[in-house]
Amino acid sequence: MRDMLGREDVITVEQAKELIFKTFSPKLPPEAKLEIEESYGRILSRDILSTEDLPNFARSTVDGFAVDSSDTFGATEGFPAYLNVVYEILMGEEPDFELRKGEVAKIATGGMLPGGADAVVMLEHTQTINDKMIEGLKPVAPGENVIQAGEDARKGELILKRGHKLRPQDIGALAGLGITEVYVYERPRVSIISTGDEIVPADKPIKSGQVRDINSFNLTGLIYEAGGISVKKGIFNDKYEIIRNVVEESLKDSDMVIVTGGSSVGTKDMTARVINDLGEPGILFHGVSIKPGKPMIGGIVNGTPVFGIPGHPAAVTVCFEQFMEPVLKHLTGLVENRFANKKRTVMARITKNLASSPGREDHIRVALEGRDGDLWARPILGKSGLITTLVKADGTVVIPLRKLGIEEGEMVEVKLF
Amino acid sequence: MRDMLGREDVITVEQAKELIFKTFSPKLPPEAKLEIEESYGRILSRDILSTEDLPNFARSTVDGFAVDSSDTFGATEGFPAYLNVVYEILMGEEPDFELRKGEVAKIATGGMLPGGADAVVMLEHTQTINDKMIEGLKPVAPGENVIQAGEDARKGELILKRGHKLRPQDIGALAGLGITEVYVYERPRVSIISTGDEIVPADKPIKSGQVRDINSFNLTGLIYEAGGISVKKGIFNDKYEIIRNVVEESLKDSDMVIVTGGSSVGTKDMTARVINDLGEPGILFHGVSIKPGKPMIGGIVNGTPVFGIPGHPAAVTVCFEQFMEPVLKHLTGLVENRFANKKRTVMARITKNLASSPGREDHIRVALEGRDGDLWARPILGKSGLITTLVKADGTVVIPLRKLGIEEGEMVEVKLF
Repeated sequence: MRDMLGREDVITVEQAKELIFKTFSPKLPPEAKLEIEESYGRILSRDILSTEDLPNFARSTVDGFAVDSSDTFGATEGFPAYLNVVYEILMGEEPDFELRKGEVAKIATGGMLPGGADAVVMLEHTQTINDKMIEGLKPVAPGENVIQAGEDARKGELILKRGHKLRPQDIGALAGLGITEVYVYERPRVSIISTGDEIVPADKPIKSGQVRDINSFNLTGLIYEAGGISVKKGIFNDKYEIIRNVVEESLKDSDMVIVTGGSSVGTKDMTARVINDLGEPGILFHGVSIKPGKPMIGGIVNGTPVFGIPGHPAAVTVCFEQFMEPVLKHLTGLVENRFANKKRTVMARITKNLASSPGREDHIRVALEGRDGDLWARPILGKSGLITTLVKADGTVVIPLRKLGIEEGEMVEVKLF
Repeated sequence: MRDMLGREDVITVEQAKELIFKTFSPKLPPEAKLEIEESYGRILSRDILSTEDLPNFARSTVDGFAVDSSDTFGATEGFPAYLNVVYEILMGEEPDFELRKGEVAKIATGGMLPGGADAVVMLEHTQTINDKMIEGLKPVAPGENVIQAGEDARKGELILKRGHKLRPQDIGALAGLGITEVYVYERPRVSIISTGDEIVPADKPIKSGQVRDINSFNLTGLIYEAGGISVKKGIFNDKYEIIRNVVEESLKDSDMVIVTGGSSVGTKDMTARVINDLGEPGILFHGVSIKPGKPMIGGIVNGTPVFGIPGHPAAVTVCFEQFMEPVLKHLTGLVENRFANKKRTVMARITKNLASSPGREDHIRVALEGRDGDLWARPILGKSGLITTLVKADGTVVIPLRKLGIEEGEMVEVKLF
């Protein structure tokens, strides 16, 4: 799509995302069966139902005496209930007796209630008369200070859903149910192809005119945080055949492909050509109204998303967050909590006026500062080719498409790194 | 410390934290030298200074023509500057020529500026006349569309501080500087000792009256997320000699010790006795005005923090977050960003009235809900002995010490899991 002047059309971020998610139906990765110890942070590939009642017996939540609650009705400090202590319940043991009227059994937190008991009187609400008798100073209601059998989970109840990311307490719940292995999705693989005749590996000496590969290191961390595995394909010359070969190879062994660099006019067109030549539907968009990141390319090659992003470090971070992260999260099988994004944002006041062109979504890097108890966001200005602006920043602020800028003191949402 | 009725004094959460951090001077873990590929999320044990200027040459940020900016002064579409294209700069190459007055060199994004050039005219602001000549349609200022040598980082500049947790962009910056190995702190080791005669391992069959070990699985995840390594010591009987032996052994090979369970009166006192008997200063507090988690014990044994926490799953999560997480973060060497805590909180309205006793800090588990675009926090009620309340919750809300409750619709801060 070219306009009258032969320039590529540029679409908005929203339009670009819509195009991707309309065209793209993620193939979920294969399952893996893991010990729960190994599954922290992994995504469940199957629903998990409770295999039993949890707990499988009624248990005390306090230290005290298991009673028939009706034996305590009306008890006060002035007119206590006199109760016969006839048993002591041992932890981890099933009581082999039944309480009769007026009888109680000593019980500790977590102990199993005996037959005939429906509540526990707290130690603090009793007075010891002797080894065999106590005074109950307060009444208890049926079920008081007791966790009923199945109160935590009922047999057959849905505990965790497919697509859920396992948190520490989830693994705890699985252990509590005796579920020690789970099915999770394998992590999707993302190939990173670095292009540019001026790029050299980080561990090699450089000459004037050359720069070291920054982006594959930044991307590897971003991919990992989004639940994927990065596969660094290496640094390649800006030649059609070379790029085509490595993209083709990457499509075979990965779930997503990112080509970085090639931000110069000729190379951009070449990356787009490779994407179009390798499969259907090819390029979805070529240029997005976002700064930094405008020359971005998005495509799908026979079901696999392929992105071409400019080599500027700030553009890499912004484009990843806007496009590749949501696509990658789909590929992990994650069904994200609707509020998950809230976890990474804070509100702050901007420390200075910022101008923005209409028709462009501006992503500004900011550092947070405290001033008199308020949170302020200080823009880290600098060209998008600088990596240290990202190092100094705590997050980014977006100036939306139709907004001309932000005024000093205005409240903004900061998306934190 | 016992009051007139022989009850243990209970202190506030703030007082308890103060006591710990006053008494405790964390020994930092030993250093490890890692490849940067292996150091995502690790804590730097040394400051990192830039070893060179980044970039080490002036480079173009656009596709266009390297010029002496004074050759373009006054240029307009009507009165363009006529410029002689005498060279093309190759990517990754140091130009072996110098521009003379009126001469320009074709340059791509990332290309090295030649001698005699101090700016770049964007391709879009030129008109091609022939192979040898272009029209410059707009003036450029000195330095325009150029990243100067050292503009990203100057040789000797502090790039990252000791105690910083390495993010993707930080690793990118290190790669850009050619720093491919870093010194980080080893992860501190936290021993988990589970006690309780009723507790059985998660993978073993259980009888009535027994429950499976939930807490060591929950704690392992929480410890990992806080930057530590968990060492599960196993499940032990509530006997003084047994607990003393395993705590003593744990003190030798770990940086922090957590004893869970033993929430019954006798066992609580026993854990406290073990802590006091094994070294100085011993117990710092025994009972905190927090719900859940009141029977918590905190101590330091010859420099190593030791905590005794009740076995209720909700108490484990709340106590960990309040006490063990901040102590553990100190042990990792992390110098936390002052705003780091903001990353995990959102504001929401509470969906129902909640009562709370004065003199007690109440930690309520909540699930988030959207209603007409507003965020609401719905309390997940249930006893602290239940694990599934934690599974259903997105985070916790605190009702402070002196507050009697929260009214429906009131705005609260939710600390997200």
